Amino acid sequence: MSQDTLRVGIVGAAGYTGAELLRLIHRHPRLELVWVAGNSNAGRKLSAVLPGTLGVQGIGELEIERFEAADAQRLAEQLDVVFCCLPHAKSAEVVSSLYAAGLRVVDLSADFRLRSEEDYRTWYGEHPAAALLGEAVYGLPELHREALRDARLIAAPGCYPTSALLPLAPLVKSDLLDLSGPIIVDAKSGVSGAGRTPGPGTHFSETSEGIRAYKVAGSHRHTGEIEQELSIAAGQRVQVVFTPHLVPMTRGILSVAYLKPRAGVDAERCRGAARSYYPEGGLVSVMQDELPDTLWVRGSVRAHVAYRLDPRTGTLIAFGAIDNLTRGASGQALHALNVALGWDEDLGLPQLGQFP
Amino acid sequence: MSQDTLRVGIVGAAGYTGAELLRLIHRHPRLELVWVAGNSNAGRKLSAVLPGTLGVQGIGELEIERFEAADAQRLAEQLDVVFCCLPHAKSAEVVSSLYAAGLRVVDLSADFRLRSEEDYRTWYGEHPAAALLGEAVYGLPELHREALRDARLIAAPGCYPTSALLPLAPLVKSDLLDLSGPIIVDAKSGVSGAGRTPGPGTHFSETSEGIRAYKVAGSHRHTGEIEQELSIAAGQRVQVVFTPHLVPMTRGILSVAYLKPRAGVDAERCRGAARSYYPEGGLVSVMQDELPDTLWVRGSVRAHVAYRLDPRTGTLIAFGAIDNLTRGASGQALHALNVALGWDEDLGLPQLGQFP
Amino acid sequence: MSQDTLRVGIVGAAGYTGAELLRLIHRHPRLELVWVAGNSNAGRKLSAVLPGTLGVQGIGELEIERFEAADAQRLAEQLDVVFCCLPHAKSAEVVSSLYAAGLRVVDLSADFRLRSEEDYRTWYGEHPAAALLGEAVYGLPELHREALRDARLIAAPGCYPTSALLPLAPLVKSDLLDLSGPIIVDAKSGVSGAGRTPGPGTHFSETSEGIRAYKVAGSHRHTGEIEQELSIAAGQRVQVVFTPHLVPMTRGILSVAYLKPRAGVDAERCRGAARSYYPEGGLVSVMQDELPDTLWVRGSVRAHVAYRLDPRTGTLIAFGAIDNLTRGASGQALHALNVALGWDEDLGLPQLGQFP
Amino acid sequence: MSQDTLRVGIVGAAGYTGAELLRLIHRHPRLELVWVAGNSNAGRKLSAVLPGTLGVQGIGELEIERFEAADAQRLAEQLDVVFCCLPHAKSAEVVSSLYAAGLRVVDLSADFRLRSEEDYRTWYGEHPAAALLGEAVYGLPELHREALRDARLIAAPGCYPTSALLPLAPLVKSDLLDLSGPIIVDAKSGVSGAGRTPGPGTHFSETSEGIRAYKVAGSHRHTGEIEQELSIAAGQRVQVVFTPHLVPMTRGILSVAYLKPRAGVDAERCRGAARSYYPEGGLVSVMQDELPDTLWVRGSVRAHVAYRLDPRTGTLIAFGAIDNLTRGASGQALHALNVALGWDEDLGLPQLGQFP
Repeated sequence: MSQDTLRVGIVGAAGYTGAELLRLIHRHPRLELVWVAGNSNAGRKLSAVLPGTLGVQGIGELEIERFEAADAQRLAEQLDVVFCCLPHAKSAEVVSSLYAAGLRVVDLSADFRLRSEEDYRTWYGEHPAAALLGEAVYGLPELHREALRDARLIAAPGCYPTSALLPLAPLVKSDLLDLSGPIIVDAKSGVSGAGRTPGPGTHFSETSEGIRAYKVAGSHRHTGEIEQELSIAAGQRVQVVFTPHLVPMTRGILSVAYLKPRAGVDAERCRGAARSYYPEGGLVSVMQDELPDTLWVRGSVRAHVAYRLDPRTGTLIAFGAIDNLTRGASGQALHALNVALGWDEDLGLPQLGQFP
Repeated sequence: MSQDTLRVGIVGAAGYTGAELLRLIHRHPRLELVWVAGNSNAGRKLSAVLPGTLGVQGIGELEIERFEAADAQRLAEQLDVVFCCLPHAKSAEVVSSLYAAGLRVVDLSADFRLRSEEDYRTWYGEHPAAALLGEAVYGLPELHREALRDARLIAAPGCYPTSALLPLAPLVKSDLLDLSGPIIVDAKSGVSGAGRTPGPGTHFSETSEGIRAYKVAGSHRHTGEIEQELSIAAGQRVQVVFTPHLVPMTRGILSVAYLKPRAGVDAERCRGAARSYYPEGGLVSVMQDELPDTLWVRGSVRAHVAYRLDPRTGTLIAFGAIDNLTRGASGQALHALNVALGWDEDLGLPQLGQFP
Repeated sequence: MSQDTLRVGIVGAAGYTGAELLRLIHRHPRLELVWVAGNSNAGRKLSAVLPGTLGVQGIGELEIERFEAADAQRLAEQLDVVFCCLPHAKSAEVVSSLYAAGLRVVDLSADFRLRSEEDYRTWYGEHPAAALLGEAVYGLPELHREALRDARLIAAPGCYPTSALLPLAPLVKSDLLDLSGPIIVDAKSGVSGAGRTPGPGTHFSETSEGIRAYKVAGSHRHTGEIEQELSIAAGQRVQVVFTPHLVPMTRGILSVAYLKPRAGVDAERCRGAARSYYPEGGLVSVMQDELPDTLWVRGSVRAHVAYRLDPRTGTLIAFGAIDNLTRGASGQALHALNVALGWDEDLGLPQLGQFP
Repeated sequence: MSQDTLRVGIVGAAGYTGAELLRLIHRHPRLELVWVAGNSNAGRKLSAVLPGTLGVQGIGELEIERFEAADAQRLAEQLDVVFCCLPHAKSAEVVSSLYAAGLRVVDLSADFRLRSEEDYRTWYGEHPAAALLGEAVYGLPELHREALRDARLIAAPGCYPTSALLPLAPLVKSDLLDLSGPIIVDAKSGVSGAGRTPGPGTHFSETSEGIRAYKVAGSHRHTGEIEQELSIAAGQRVQVVFTPHLVPMTRGILSVAYLKPRAGVDAERCRGAARSYYPEGGLVSVMQDELPDTLWVRGSVRAHVAYRLDPRTGTLIAFGAIDNLTRGASGQALHALNVALGWDEDLGLPQLGQFP
C-alpha cells in the first residue's frame, strides 16, 4: 500500500449506504478500508451481515467493532478518513468526537447539510452539535467545488435533493426561471432509500406492485435542503413543493420539476446553461433527444438531466435521474472526498453501472 | 340462462383489455360471452392465446373468429352487446358497422372519446367515422350518469384520464380552483398500459428496475381527453400539463395533480366536495388520513382519491389511484354498460381485487 | 339474504389468507361475511388494516373483534361457518372451542392436516388438541371428495403440498411410479407465502432481485404433509425430498418433481391418468404441449399440471402450478366447504384470475 | 496508457454480454477498449444504443462499426484481443477470421465450448469451423487453469453450466458421488439470460409475476456442456437431467443439484472437497451455515456454493449461485483472459456487486 493511500473507516457499515461504500472503496485506488463499526452488529464478521463480502480478501473477515466516543483519539492514529452512515441526530454526536480528534469526516446523514441551526430545528429538531455547522461543506461537488477543497467535514447531500438540484441549479444560476411562485418537484424513488430495516412499507408483497406518494405537502425533510441550495444558487429565496413517491424498484430516483420560465426561455436555452455548468468530462450528462431513465444510471455516479418546454402552456419541465445509493449517497461522498483531497474528481468511481 | 341475460361478444379478446373483459364478464350475472374475434389469432382456441382460460367451461374452448364488416348484420342476430378492444382508427370502422347493424357497442379505444372532430384531428388524425361522434357517450359514469342511460354507443374512457378526472372533477364542478393557469398532472402507470405487444420499452430486463417519463410536454394524446372533460365540468376552458411515467409494475395508475385553489379552499373543503360528488355506496372512496396506493385498488373497479394543501406554498395537491385495466378500461366499460341498461351500477363488478 | 345463505366469520382476517377469503366470500352467492376477529388489530375497522376494503359496503366498516374462547357459544348462535387463519398451535385452541360450540370450522393452519399425532409431534411439536385429529378432513377435494361431504372440521391443505399433490396423486394412484427411492420435489414460491409480517427475508430491496432455497434437506414442515397424502394415495410409504425456494414475485407456486417411472410409462400415459383423475369441468387442467406458468393461475382456484419424460435418462418430470393464496389456501378452503355442503364445487370461485 | 495495456475490441457490444464487458473493461487496469462492432447498429454511437455510456469518456462516443471478415487482418494490427458476443454459428465464422489473423479471441457464444464435433452436431447442428475446435480452451479457470495459460482461443462457458459445474466439479473430482444414475440439475435463471431482443416470453407484464420451466427433459443445449465437463472431471460418462426456469428477476442463476453420494459421504465431506478445490483467495466461496442467494453475487465474478445431506432419504443436495452476466459470461471471460495472460486471476474484476 503506497504512501498515497489513505486509511478509511466506516461507522454503520451494515446498512445500504455503508454497503455501497464498501463496494466503492474496495475498488478505489487510493483508499484502504481498515475499520468498520456498527453497534447493533458489533462482534460479528462483516460477511455475516453482508454475505456478498464472503471470501473477499480484506473485507469479509473484518470484524464489526462497537464505536465509543472515547475511542476517537485512538482511531485518529489509525485512520485518515471516517465515513458516518448513521441516522440523523445520532450521527452528529459521532461526527463531533471524530472531528474533534482531528479526523477527516464524511457524514452521510442529514446532520450537517443545513447551514442554519434554525432550519435544522424546523425540519429535524434541536441540533446536537450546532457549533460544527459552520465547519461543514455541502458535498455536492458541482455546486460547491471550491468550498470542498481541503474540507475536513463533508456533509454528503440527500438523495432526493441531489436528483432535484442537478437539473435545477444551472437554471437558477443562469436566472432562467420566474421564481415568484413555488417550484414543484415530483420525485420517484426506489425502495432502498427507505433503508435496511424491514417494515410494512417495504414488505415485498405490499411493495412490488404499487406506487404511492408519502410525506407530501411540505412534510418531507428534504424540502428544506432543496430550498436552501436553490436559494443559494439563485441568490434569492426559492420555495419548493416536494412530493416523494415510493416506486417498486430497488435503486434510482427520477425527479421531475415543473417550472415557470422567464420570457423567451426554451428547452434549448436550458440545455445550453446546463452544458456550461456541467462541461464534458464531468459526471453529469445533459440529454438532448432522450429523457432520463433511472435504468441507465443504476450503480453509477453519473447523473442524467433533461429539459422540455410545453408549448401549449408555457410550462418548463426539468428531469433529473440518479442512483440514490451511488450518486445520491456513497458515490457522491467519495466524489466530494476526491475533490477535498485534490484528487481527480472521478478517481475510483464507477461510471458504468450494472446493465441491465 | 335467463331472459335477463344479454349475449356478449368481444373484438380483440387476446389483448389485455380483452382478457380483463373475459375475467369480468365470466362472473357478471347478466352477461354471457358467446363470441370472440381477433384477426391476428383467428382460428385458434382462446386457451391457446390465453392459457389461463384453459379448462374454463364456456371460455377456453371458444374459437377466435375473424371479424368482417359484412358479418355485422348476422352478428346482430346473435348478440346484444359487443365490446371493441382495438387500436384507435381501426376501432372506429368496426364500431361503425356493428352500430349500424343495431348492436349496442362499448368501444374501449380512443375513437369516440373526443366530442369534437377537430380535437380528434389534433390528437389522432382524420376521424374514420366522424358522423358517429354525436352518438357516443363518454363512459365515465360518475360524470355522465344521465347521458349514459340507454346509450347505444359508449366510449370507455382512457386509463390516464380516469385517474386524473376522478380526483379533479369534484373540484372544478364546485368551482374550488383558480383555473387561470394550467393544471399539472404527473401520472405514473404500470406497464400493462402499454399493451401486449413486446418491444424494447417493455422488455423485462430494461423495465423492472427503472422509471422514466415519456411523451411529455403536451405530446401524449390523453391530454386532450382530460382537458375536454375538465372543461365540460368546469364550464370553462381548462389547460393541462400532462406527464406520464412508466413504473416497473404491471397494473395501476397514480395521478398527482398540482393545483391553485381559490382563496379559502383547503383540503377538507375538497374532501367535502368529493364526498358529495361520490356518495357512499358508490365506487369512488375519498380518503381522509391515508394517501392512495395503487396496491389497494389492483383488480378492483374502485378508485381512491385524496387531497392535501401545502400550507407553505398554498399549493393544493390531488391524488387519484386506479387499476388501469379494471377501473381504467374493462371494468369501467362494464360499469358504464350497467348504467346504460339501468342495472345496479356495481352489478357483477369486482370491488375487492387480489391482495397482495 | 336468502335462507340458503350461510353466515360466515373469519378469525385472523388481516393476514393474507384472511384478506383473500374476504375477496372470495364477497362474491360467493351463498356466503355472507358478518364477523371478523383478530387480536392484534381488535377495535379497528377492517378498512384501517386493509385499505382495499375502504367503501366496500358490508366489509370495510366491519370492526375487528377480539376472539375469546368464552365467546364460542355466543358465536355459534350468530354464525354458521368460521374460517381460522391463525398460525399453527395457536389455531388448534381456537378451532377446538369453536368446534365444541357446534360450529362448522375451516382451519387454514397446519394443525389438523396430519392424521397422526406422532407425525404432528415430529414436524410441529406437541399437539394442543389431539382429540380432534380424527374429526378433521384434509380439504383437498380432488383427493378426498367423499370424506369431505358433511365434514364439520376441514383442514385446508398447505400451499406447497397442494402444488405437489395435484400433479403426483394421479400417478401414484395409477401405480405408474417406482417408489423404491424418494420423490424429489423442487418447489418455487412467491413471497406472499411468507405472510404479512415484515422481516429481513421479505424486505423488498433484498428480495426483488434474488432467488434462494430455504429449509432444505427435510427441514420444511410441509414434507410430512406431502408424504402423508402421497402414501395414502399410493397405499405404501412414500418418501419425499422437498426443496422450497423463495422467488421474487408475490403469488404463485411451481412444483417440479423428478420421478422414476415404472417400465413403459411415458408422459402420455401420465397425462391419461391425470385426465381420468381430473375430468373436464373440474378445477385442474392437464396441459399437453405447454408447461405450467404461475402467471396463468394467479388469482384463480384452478391448477395446471403437466408431464414430460426425459428420454436420455428415463427420468419422469411432473409439474404443478397454483396460486398459493387462492388454490393453495383460501380458494381451496371455500372449494372444500362447497363440497362439504353439497354445493357445486366451483360455486362462487374465481376461475379466471387477473391477467396480467 | 502503459505498454502493459492491451487494446481490446468487442463484436456485438450492444447486447447484454457486450454491455457487461464494457462495464468491466472500463475498470480493468490493463485493458483499453478501442473498437466496437455490431452489424445491426453499425454507424451509431455507442451511447445511442446504451444510454448509460453517455458522457463516459472513451466509451460513449465510440462509433459502432460493421464487421467484415475481410477486415480481420487490419484489425489484427490495431487490436490485441477481441471478444465475440454473437449468437452461436454466427460467432464461429467471425472467430475464425479473427483467429486466423493472429488475434487472441475470447468467444462468448457456444461455438467452441463442446470439444467434439459430434456433440456440437447433436446439440447445435453442423459446426461452421470445426477445425478450430481443438484450439479452443473451455474458459472456466477453476477447472482448466493450466490449459488456459497462453490460450489464444477461449470459449467462455455458458451461464447455466457455470452455475452447475462450480458446486459439482469438486464432488466428482473427489469421487464422492455414485454416478450410476443421472444427476438432476434444477436451475433458476434471471431474465437477462434470454438476451436483449424483446419477445412474448420476456414482456414485462407477463414475466414479472410468474415462474416457468422451459426446454425441459433434455431439450436445453446446455445439457451437453454440463455433461462434457462433468464427464471430464469424473473420468467417466456422467448424465444430467437439466431443468431451466425463468425467474422474474434480471440477473442471477441458482442451480440446485440432487445427487446420490457414495457411502459415508456427508455435507461436511463435500464442503471439505470444495474448500480444497477452491482455496481461499480465489473467486468461489464455500458456504457453511448459509445457503446461496443470487442477491449476494449480483454484479460480482464470485460464486457461492453449498452442500446439504437430507438425512431422511440419503439424498445429497448441492447449490451454486452466480450472476449470469458477470460470472456466467463477461466477467468469467475476463477471468479466463487474465489466466491466459499470466495476470492475477482477479485483476480488474468486481468482487463486490451492487447491493442491494
